[in-house]
Amino acid sequence: MSATSGADKATILVEALPYIRRFWGSTVVVKYGGNAMTDPALAMQFAEDIVLMHSVGMRVVVVHGGGPQIGELMAKLGKESEFRDGLRVTDAETLDIARMVLVGKVGRDIVSSINVHAPLAVGLSGEDAGLIVASARDPELGFVGDVDTVDPSILQRLLAEDLIPILSTIGSDAAGQAYNINADTVAGAVGAALGAEKVVYLTDVAGILDGDGELIHQVDADGINAMVADGTVAGGMIPKVSACLHAVRGGVTSAHVLDGRLPHVLLLELFTDEGVGTMITKDPQ
Amino acid sequence: MSATSGADKATILVEALPYIRRFWGSTVVVKYGGNAMTDPALAMQFAEDIVLMHSVGMRVVVVHGGGPQIGELMAKLGKESEFRDGLRVTDAETLDIARMVLVGKVGRDIVSSINVHAPLAVGLSGEDAGLIVASARDPELGFVGDVDTVDPSILQRLLAEDLIPILSTIGSDAAGQAYNINADTVAGAVGAALGAEKVVYLTDVAGILDGDGELIHQVDADGINAMVADGTVAGGMIPKVSACLHAVRGGVTSAHVLDGRLPHVLLLELFTDEGVGTMITKDPQ
Amino acid sequence: MSATSGADKATILVEALPYIRRFWGSTVVVKYGGNAMTDPALAMQFAEDIVLMHSVGMRVVVVHGGGPQIGELMAKLGKESEFRDGLRVTDAETLDIARMVLVGKVGRDIVSSINVHAPLAVGLSGEDAGLIVASARDPELGFVGDVDTVDPSILQRLLAEDLIPILSTIGSDAAGQAYNINADTVAGAVGAALGAEKVVYLTDVAGILDGDGELIHQVDADGINAMVADGTVAGGMIPKVSACLHAVRGGVTSAHVLDGRLPHVLLLELFTDEGVGTMITKDPQ
Amino acid sequence: MSATSGADKATILVEALPYIRRFWGSTVVVKYGGNAMTDPALAMQFAEDIVLMHSVGMRVVVVHGGGPQIGELMAKLGKESEFRDGLRVTDAETLDIARMVLVGKVGRDIVSSINVHAPLAVGLSGEDAGLIVASARDPELGFVGDVDTVDPSILQRLLAEDLIPILSTIGSDAAGQAYNINADTVAGAVGAALGAEKVVYLTDVAGILDGDGELIHQVDADGINAMVADGTVAGGMIPKVSACLHAVRGGVTSAHVLDGRLPHVLLLELFTDEGVGTMITKDPQ
Amino acid sequence: MSATSGADKATILVEALPYIRRFWGSTVVVKYGGNAMTDPALAMQFAEDIVLMHSVGMRVVVVHGGGPQIGELMAKLGKESEFRDGLRVTDAETLDIARMVLVGKVGRDIVSSINVHAPLAVGLSGEDAGLIVASARDPELGFVGDVDTVDPSILQRLLAEDLIPILSTIGSDAAGQAYNINADTVAGAVGAALGAEKVVYLTDVAGILDGDGELIHQVDADGINAMVADGTVAGGMIPKVSACLHAVRGGVTSAHVLDGRLPHVLLLELFTDEGVGTMITKDPQ
Amino acid sequence: MSATSGADKATILVEALPYIRRFWGSTVVVKYGGNAMTDPALAMQFAEDIVLMHSVGMRVVVVHGGGPQIGELMAKLGKESEFRDGLRVTDAETLDIARMVLVGKVGRDIVSSINVHAPLAVGLSGEDAGLIVASARDPELGFVGDVDTVDPSILQRLLAEDLIPILSTIGSDAAGQAYNINADTVAGAVGAALGAEKVVYLTDVAGILDGDGELIHQVDADGINAMVADGTVAGGMIPKVSACLHAVRGGVTSAHVLDGRLPHVLLLELFTDEGVGTMITKDPQ
Repeated sequence: MSATSGADKATILVEALPYIRRFWGSTVVVKYGGNAMTDPALAMQFAEDIVLMHSVGMRVVVVHGGGPQIGELMAKLGKESEFRDGLRVTDAETLDIARMVLVGKVGRDIVSSINVHAPLAVGLSGEDAGLIVASARDPELGFVGDVDTVDPSILQRLLAEDLIPILSTIGSDAAGQAYNINADTVAGAVGAALGAEKVVYLTDVAGILDGDGELIHQVDADGINAMVADGTVAGGMIPKVSACLHAVRGGVTSAHVLDGRLPHVLLLELFTDEGVGTMITKDPQ
Repeated sequence: MSATSGADKATILVEALPYIRRFWGSTVVVKYGGNAMTDPALAMQFAEDIVLMHSVGMRVVVVHGGGPQIGELMAKLGKESEFRDGLRVTDAETLDIARMVLVGKVGRDIVSSINVHAPLAVGLSGEDAGLIVASARDPELGFVGDVDTVDPSILQRLLAEDLIPILSTIGSDAAGQAYNINADTVAGAVGAALGAEKVVYLTDVAGILDGDGELIHQVDADGINAMVADGTVAGGMIPKVSACLHAVRGGVTSAHVLDGRLPHVLLLELFTDEGVGTMITKDPQ
Repeated sequence: MSATSGADKATILVEALPYIRRFWGSTVVVKYGGNAMTDPALAMQFAEDIVLMHSVGMRVVVVHGGGPQIGELMAKLGKESEFRDGLRVTDAETLDIARMVLVGKVGRDIVSSINVHAPLAVGLSGEDAGLIVASARDPELGFVGDVDTVDPSILQRLLAEDLIPILSTIGSDAAGQAYNINADTVAGAVGAALGAEKVVYLTDVAGILDGDGELIHQVDADGINAMVADGTVAGGMIPKVSACLHAVRGGVTSAHVLDGRLPHVLLLELFTDEGVGTMITKDPQ
Repeated sequence: MSATSGADKATILVEALPYIRRFWGSTVVVKYGGNAMTDPALAMQFAEDIVLMHSVGMRVVVVHGGGPQIGELMAKLGKESEFRDGLRVTDAETLDIARMVLVGKVGRDIVSSINVHAPLAVGLSGEDAGLIVASARDPELGFVGDVDTVDPSILQRLLAEDLIPILSTIGSDAAGQAYNINADTVAGAVGAALGAEKVVYLTDVAGILDGDGELIHQVDADGINAMVADGTVAGGMIPKVSACLHAVRGGVTSAHVLDGRLPHVLLLELFTDEGVGTMITKDPQ
Repeated sequence: MSATSGADKATILVEALPYIRRFWGSTVVVKYGGNAMTDPALAMQFAEDIVLMHSVGMRVVVVHGGGPQIGELMAKLGKESEFRDGLRVTDAETLDIARMVLVGKVGRDIVSSINVHAPLAVGLSGEDAGLIVASARDPELGFVGDVDTVDPSILQRLLAEDLIPILSTIGSDAAGQAYNINADTVAGAVGAALGAEKVVYLTDVAGILDGDGELIHQVDADGINAMVADGTVAGGMIPKVSACLHAVRGGVTSAHVLDGRLPHVLLLELFTDEGVGTMITKDPQ
Repeated sequence: MSATSGADKATILVEALPYIRRFWGSTVVVKYGGNAMTDPALAMQFAEDIVLMHSVGMRVVVVHGGGPQIGELMAKLGKESEFRDGLRVTDAETLDIARMVLVGKVGRDIVSSINVHAPLAVGLSGEDAGLIVASARDPELGFVGDVDTVDPSILQRLLAEDLIPILSTIGSDAAGQAYNINADTVAGAVGAALGAEKVVYLTDVAGILDGDGELIHQVDADGINAMVADGTVAGGMIPKVSACLHAVRGGVTSAHVLDGRLPHVLLLELFTDEGVGTMITKDPQ
C-alpha cells in the first residue's frame, strides 16, 4: 500500500466516517477463535482491528476459545482427550489444563498483542467477581459447564474505564468449582447481558450458507430455525447459531458470522460497504 | 478512490492506528480561516476532518476568523472599511456587523457542516460565560480588542460532554462592551489556557519558509525569533507566529502552521507520515 | 427609591422570602420579545430580573425572538420582506439574515446585558448539539420551520453548571439545513422538554382578556379552547396560547402571559402578591 | 411596609443584586447570641435573614451560645453558678445542664425557626463526627474547653447538600469527655477551618468603638492589637476580637462585629450600602 | 477471656465470616432503650456492638427513647408527670424538657460512647432537615405526636458518608411545632422509609412469648395479629409489635425483638448461630 | 471451638474492634506463597483471612508466587529447570509454562477460594492495562524481569469497587514481551505505588532472626542493612528484605515478615495483641 498517496489515504479515512459515527459508543462482543487466532499474521491483524475499533469509540469485549491449544498441551502431557457428542469429557486434570491454557496462555497472548498498541486490554476469567455462574451440563461430561447467570458488572466497570476485557470462558459455581464453557455460548450470553449492539463470531467459514452453498447475507430468527430444521445448518454451526439467537432474543441488535480467515475482516465488516459474512437479526429487516 | 479494494482500505485504516493512539485523549485547538473556509469543497472536508479527529478520541476546539465575510456584509450595507496597520478600525456599527457575521453566520455555518455528521458542534462567542475578557488595543482602532484573560471552564465542560466548541472571537470587558479580536491570537491563548497538546493554524501558505523560500518542517522559539528579527518572517505571518510562541510558552506542546488549501490537510498532518507545514516547539527537538 | 431606609429595604427582601422558597430549584423558561426587548431601560431591567431569578435558585432559560430587528437589517440591505398569513416568506438570503440577527445580534445583546452582572449567560442556537430538529412548515414559506423534536441535553448541562442559556430559535434538519422557527412555539416546546415549572411569555399586552376586555387572571386549557373557538382569543395571541397549551399538556405546571411593558414584570409576578397577567394551567385550579 | 408598591418592591430587590452576586457561593459563619436570640421578634427575623442568605446562594453556618439559658435552667434546678474570671466553673452536672440547654433547647429552637421556611437546618454538636476536638482549659474550671482541632468535613458535607448547619459549641476529647467551649472562639475556628469568606458576630453593642466612643467601621489586625494594648478594647469584647483575629489570620477574608439588636442586621450589612458595625481584616484595606 | 489463645480468637473471628458477608452493605435500624441504655456496662457494650456492625459493612441507624431520663429531670424540676393510657401528657414545658433530655443528653451520651472508638456518630433530631413530619395524636395529650411522613434523605446522606446517625424522636409540623413521638414507632417508620434489611428492638424482655410463656423464635404478620387478638401479646408489647408490622409491611425484611439485658446481644443475634429473641417477618418463612 | 459460648464469642469479636478501627480503610498488600499456599488447610484459612480483612474495611491486594508449581509442570512436561544464582533460567518455553501456571492455575485457585465466600476476587497479571512494565534482568537468565514501573490505576479501580485483586507477577515490556518477575519484589513495588499502609510477606520462617536465632519483633531500615552487611540476614531472605526496604522507603508505613505456617497468621497479626513475625519500618519507632 505504500504507493497510496497521502491524499488517497485521507480520503479512505473519511470514507469510514459514516460507519465510525454509526457505531460510536456502542458495545460489540467479539468471539475470537479458529484460524484468526492460530495464524500469527491474522492474530496481529485481529489485535490491530480491536484497538482501532476501541479508538473510534466502540466498547469492545473479546471472548475467546482455545480448543486446539488445550489439545496440544494435553498431548504434550500424554493425556488422551475423550470426546462425546463433540464435547471434550473434562475430568479435574483436564479442567486444570484447559484453565491454564485459556486463562494463562491464550488470553494472555491476546492481551499482549493488544497492549503493544496501548495498555488497554485486561484478561478476565468468568470466575472473576462472579461474572459467570455455571453448572455441570451432564455428569458424564465432567466439568463441562452451562451458563446459569452472567453478572456483567466487572465488564461494565472496565468498559467505563476505556479498557478492553479479554474473557476466558471458565465459569464457577457457588462452591467454587470451575467449569469449562463453550465460548460461542458465552459470547452470546455476555452480549445479551451487556445489551450489546453486536455480537460478532470469527469462524473458519465464509458465513452461513443456504442449501445451494451460497452465502446468506442476512437472515432472521425464524429463517435460522427453518434452516436448522431442514438440516441446512448443521454440525458445529448449530451451537454458533443458537448463541446468535440467544443474543438477539436477549436484546442484541444483530449477530454476525464472519470469515476470520480474511485479513482485517472486522474492519471490512464494520467500516466499509463490503458486507462480509452473515448478519442475524431477531426480526426480518 | 472507488477502485481501492476493501482490503486495501482496511490496511490504510490500520496504518493510521499508531497516530490515532498517539493523540487519543489529547486536546487540539484548530484555527480555521482563509481558503479552507471560503472554498465549499475544502469547508466540507474540514468538517469531515474535525469529526474524524473527534471520533478517534481527540478533544477538538475550533477557533475561526472571518475578515472577508465581514467585509462583504459591510460592502452590501454600503459601509467603508478603514484599515490602520492592517487592522480594521472598528466603530460600534462595524463591531455589530462583525459580531453578526462571526457569531451568526460563519460560526453557524461551521456548526452546521459538522452537525450533518452528528450533533457534536456547539457555537460559542468569547462573550459566553466569561470565556474571553478583552480590552481595547488602541483607542484609535475602536473596538479592536486584546485578550486579557481566558477562562476555559465553559470549553472544558463542553469537551467533557464529548462536544466540539466552535468559537467566534468576540470578547467583552467587565462593562459588557464587546470587542473583535484577532483569531490567531485567540487560538494561541485558548490553547495555552486549555493546556492543549497542539494548536494548528490553517493558512493560505505552505508553512513558514526560510530565506531561500524552502518550507521549514520544524523550528523552536529562538529560531522563530531570529527569523522575525532578520525579516525572514514578516507581514501577516507575524501575528500568527506570535500566537504560536504564546501557545508553546504557555504549555502547548507544539504549534503547527499548515496549508489549508490542501484537501484534508488536518488528516495528512495528524494521521500519516506525510508531514506537511511547519511545527513550532518551545525548545529544540 | 433612595428615600427608603435600610430597615424598610430589609423588610421588603424578607417579604419576598416565601416566593423565593417556593420557586427555589425550579426551572423557568422565559420567552423574551416585544417592547421589553427594544426599550433599552426595559431590556436592562429584564437582565436584572433574570440574574436575580438565577441568584435566588431558579434555573432560567431565555428564548428570544427578533422579528423587528430582522426586518430592520433586511431594510438596510434593500431586501423586501414578503409575508403570507403573518409569516415571513424566508428564502435562503432571508434565512441568513434572520440567523445573523437572532444569533449574532439579538442573542448576543441579551448575553451581554446579563454578563455585566456575572458571567452566567451562554448564547445558543437550536442548531447546537442537536437541540432543535426542525422541518419546513410549508414549501411556499421557504425556510420557516416547525419543531420536530427537542433534545434538551445541552440545556440541562448548562443549567447544571449554574449557567443561563439564551436560545435563538433557529433549528436544523438532518441535512444541516437551517430553519427560522416561531419563538413562542420554541419556548413552549423547550419548557415541555425540560419539564419546567413555568413558561413565561413577555408580551406587549396586559395578558389574555375576556369578551369584556377584562384581564383574565387564571384559565385552564378548556377555557382557552373555548375562547379560541368563540373568537375572544384571536390574531397574534393564537400561536402564543397554542404554545402555552402545548407546554402545560407536556408537563409544565403553568404558562404565563405577562405585560412586558411593565418594569420588572418578572419580579412582580414571581416575588410579590401583585399577580400580573394571565396564568394558564392544564386543569382548573 | 404594605404601602410600598409592587414596583418599588421590585426596585429594592434589584438594588440588592450586586451584593447578592458578590457573595453568591461564599461561606459565611454567623455567631448568634445575645438579644438577637432572646428577643422573640429578633429571633424570628434572624431566621428569615439566614434563610434569605441561603436562598441567594450563600453557604451559611450558624454557631450559637446560650449562657443565659444555661443559667436559667441551673437556677430552676437550684444549682449555683460559680464564675471565675468571667468563666463558669463547669462540674459534671453543670456540663450536663449546659449540653442539654445548648444542644437540646437553644440549637433546637434555631433549627425550628429556620425550618418553618424550608427543611434546611440541621442541628449539630461539636461532638458529632469528630467536628471539634477539645481539651480542658484549666483544671480549676472543670469542663471548660479550648478548641484543639476542627475537622470541618461534616459541615462541608451538609453545606454541599444545600443544608444549614446549626452548631452547638460542645467539643469532646479522645476519651469521649465533653467540654463546653466559648462560642465566639468556635465561630472563629470554624470560619478558619472552612476558609470562610466572612465570620459575623451578632452582639449587644453597636460594634467596636474607638477611644471617643465612636463606631469604627473598619480596622486591621494591628489596629485591633493596639486597641487591646491601650485598653480601648476590653472586657467581654476581648475574646470576640481574639476570635476575629484568629479567623482572619486563618484565611477568613473579614470578620464583622454587628449590633444584633437591630432588626435584620444581617441583611442590612450584606445587602445594602448601610454598612453597620465593624469590619476586621488581616491587613489594612 | 484472656485465657483464649490467639489461634482460638482467630477461629472465632472466622466463624463470624458467613454472617458478616450476609449482612455486608445492608441497612439495620436499632431501637435502643431500656436497661441496655441505663446500665453503664451494657451501654458501653452497645456502643462496641454498633461500631463493630458498622466496621463489618453494615449501615446502622440508632433510634433511641428516654422515658425514664425525662421523668428524672421532671422530678428534679418538681414537675409532675401525668399519664393517660400509658402516654405522658405533654404540655409545652414537658415537651421542652423531653427535647432537652432526648436530644441534649441521651442522644449525646450515645454519640459520645460511639465516638470513643472512631468519629462516626452524628446526633440528629427528627426536626432536622424535615426528617420527621408529625402531628398531634390527641389534643388531650398535648404535644405527643404521630409520624406523618419520614424523609430519609439526611439519613441516607450520612450513611453514604460512612457515618452512624443517632436519632432522637422529636418531630415537627409545618408550623415548626415540635412533638415527642414514641421511639418504637419511629424505628419502624424509619426502617420502612430506608428500605432497611432489619429493624431491631432492644427490650427488657426475652422476646415475644407464646401462651405458655415460651419464647417464639419466628412469627409472621398473621401470627402476630392472632396473638394480639387473643391477648397473648398485650400491654407495652403492643406498640412494639405494631411498629414491627409497619416495618415489615413497608419493605423491611425482618424485625427483631431482642433481650437488651444480655451483653452484646446484637452481636449474638447477628454474628453467631445462637439465635436470640423473636424474628418477625411479613410472610411465613 | 464449639465449646466457646456465644457470649465469649461476642467478647472476642469486640476485642478485635480497636484493631479493626485502626486499619479500617487502609491498603494492605499481601505476598502469598510457600506452605501457606501449598497446604490445603492453610490455603483455605488464607482465603478466610483475606475475606475477613476485606469485610472489616481494608483494601487488600494479593501478590502471589508459584515456583514449586512451575517446577511441577515443567517436570511433567519433561523439561529441565536450570538455575543460576538461585534464579530459574527462563527460555520462551519456560516463560510460557510459568505464565500458564501463575495466571492460569495458582492465581485462579486463589480467586476461587475467595469467591466461595463472596464474588470479590479478580485475577490480574502485571501485563493487564500496563500494570507492570518490566525489562530483562540479565540476558543470560532469559525472560527473568525486573520491575521498571508500576501503574497502579487498574488496582485502584478494582479496590474502589470493593474488589480484591489477585496479582500474578508477569510483567511485559513495550514490545509486548512478557517476563517472569520475583513476587517479593513485585509486592514491595506495588505497595509503594499504592501508598499502602502495610506490605505483608507470608514465609516459611518465623520472621527475621537475630544472631542468636531469636525472633526480631521490630527493626528499621538501618538495622536491616547492618544485618545484611554482617551476614545475619542471608540467602533467600535477602530479596525479601530488599523488597521490604523498597516498600518502606517508597512510603509504605510498615513491612511485615510473618510465618505463613501458622493458621490464620494474618488475623493473629492484624487483630490480636499477639504480635507475630517481624515488622520493618523506615525509621526507628
